[in-house]
Amino acid sequence: MSDKRTEIGEIGEFGLIDHLSEKIIIKHNSTLRGIGDDAAVIEAGDHVKVVTTDLLLEGVHFDLSYAPLPHLGFKAVAVNVSDIAAMNAIPKQITVSIALSNRFSVEAVDALYSGINAAAEHYGVDVIGGDTTASRSGLVISITAIGDAKKEQLSFRSGAKVNDIVCVTGDLGGALVGLQILEREKQVYLANPEMTPELDGFQYVTGRQLRPEARMDIIHELREMEVVPTSMIDVSDGLASELFHICKASGVGVTIYEDKLPIDKQTFDTAVELNLDPITCVLNGGEDYELLFTIDQKDFSKLEKHPDIHFIGHVTKAEDGKLMVTKSGTVVSLKAQGWKHF
Amino acid sequence: MSDKRTEIGEIGEFGLIDHLSEKIIIKHNSTLRGIGDDAAVIEAGDHVKVVTTDLLLEGVHFDLSYAPLPHLGFKAVAVNVSDIAAMNAIPKQITVSIALSNRFSVEAVDALYSGINAAAEHYGVDVIGGDTTASRSGLVISITAIGDAKKEQLSFRSGAKVNDIVCVTGDLGGALVGLQILEREKQVYLANPEMTPELDGFQYVTGRQLRPEARMDIIHELREMEVVPTSMIDVSDGLASELFHICKASGVGVTIYEDKLPIDKQTFDTAVELNLDPITCVLNGGEDYELLFTIDQKDFSKLEKHPDIHFIGHVTKAEDGKLMVTKSGTVVSLKAQGWKHF
Repeated sequence: MSDKRTEIGEIGEFGLIDHLSEKIIIKHNSTLRGIGDDAAVIEAGDHVKVVTTDLLLEGVHFDLSYAPLPHLGFKAVAVNVSDIAAMNAIPKQITVSIALSNRFSVEAVDALYSGINAAAEHYGVDVIGGDTTASRSGLVISITAIGDAKKEQLSFRSGAKVNDIVCVTGDLGGALVGLQILEREKQVYLANPEMTPELDGFQYVTGRQLRPEARMDIIHELREMEVVPTSMIDVSDGLASELFHICKASGVGVTIYEDKLPIDKQTFDTAVELNLDPITCVLNGGEDYELLFTIDQKDFSKLEKHPDIHFIGHVTKAEDGKLMVTKSGTVVSLKAQGWKHF
Repeated sequence: MSDKRTEIGEIGEFGLIDHLSEKIIIKHNSTLRGIGDDAAVIEAGDHVKVVTTDLLLEGVHFDLSYAPLPHLGFKAVAVNVSDIAAMNAIPKQITVSIALSNRFSVEAVDALYSGINAAAEHYGVDVIGGDTTASRSGLVISITAIGDAKKEQLSFRSGAKVNDIVCVTGDLGGALVGLQILEREKQVYLANPEMTPELDGFQYVTGRQLRPEARMDIIHELREMEVVPTSMIDVSDGLASELFHICKASGVGVTIYEDKLPIDKQTFDTAVELNLDPITCVLNGGEDYELLFTIDQKDFSKLEKHPDIHFIGHVTKAEDGKLMVTKSGTVVSLKAQGWKHF
């Protein structure tokens, strides 16, 4: 090691991942896809297994002062299931590792696991292993999920083609707005512990933050309708950032339309109350765990009437850039602000 | 959640794992084996995949004041490979998640990854994914390893039969003794930073602690000799504790012989210097990552001349208990002290 010191902040989280990935060489033929998508893909007989993992730390990814333990357990599973969904695969197994400080009682661990087991039940995954250890600082949760698919069913980030239609499920921005509300009420509480948090009227957005759903319902529906998205990713870092990932991996551009972006009324109203631009929340809010995908035009008629799939734009040539047409008809360049922990 | 508060220390790490495992229901036929062995087993065409995961935290599992980052990276991979080996499977892929505090520079991350990549190269595994995030406190490393085997090649903890021979590879106790030396020299250094740590003459034991090897060499040799152990486990928590796991899972007892237990001369001498009983180090020292396994008597002749496999005892009926015959011929009950982080 030389004496040079480069701060991680200088290259950022994605920069660090790119930097580390450069040195990785794939040797086994059975490794069909390594780093660079929502999950890795390995051969398994006539099917493939998809594998994804997430590391969640107290104080970075969650705050136990407002995240109820059962919700946290559910969310930790859901975010991994969401990555399996984003490959168009079906989650089957998870491993769950936790590190606990001694302020955790057995009852608290049970509360956390009640959420983990509820999510395992809900998404039909088996908890097959894990590790349980002590922590000198906060709670750490590491989950690995394994899914199953036929090879031809997989959707990668890299398959979007010019003229494909860009689709997104559900609505966006709610989880970010919910987080702002939870943080605001936490500050109020810290300033005056006798104040009761004001969460009435914010259930939807706080629910989006505290107990998100992975959109497995959509994956099952796509299978029934025999639609395989040409590309797919889950919205964990914000719509704009995910569009950039698809464009980069597929070598394409994109144009989306502001008036097509799905936002819930409570998200919109709360954003305004918080002096946040609702469209910025939709474009750059993280943790919605909706699915962003592209379909071939021939599949449009199959999805056209789906109440929870929104058609927000189309795929263009790379040289056309990544654009948004605003409600007033102005064309602006998208910026991928993303979600920074460093 | 009721108001009752049970400390984790009251039930211990194994107690907590048992408590949490009770509530887990396996639903998929493709989950062949869940919690309770060195790794889980899932169906994958005509082969099976074995899956294991480990969570390592700074201040609990390692101390960066004496663990060089490349060694730490190597060890983090090796301990997972060792769990795959303990199933008699071949590791193929790993995911690597790390959480980094801002005192880590990009160069430090590179040093850690140089060890991870060296181990991946050494054990022939592909790094297929992971997660990289910030940590508010220390370094966290979470690795999941996936291995491959034919179903009939697997060795579980549960297959030991009465009259099987108990085998252990390499030598034991070194990693514990090495840790004591590293801790001693750290205290000397903390008391007087101008003192240079005295590690001459302790290279073997400190190496056992800092950069252990997973015994994949043995797994490959067993395959060549067409020996499938009737049961197997890796020695991560100490020989006695691992023997208890095999006895419990197999419903058997065991008798081992003190004079057959393998100990390296440096381990022995250093233990004596540290006023530790060498046999206690062998029985209860953790982190040696050797393989403990049982074989059918018919396979003994195939392994008899192997220089690095030691025949330390035999399997008995459960009601005969777990015994050690000392050098003086006395029969004592084994105690599984294990390795406690809580």
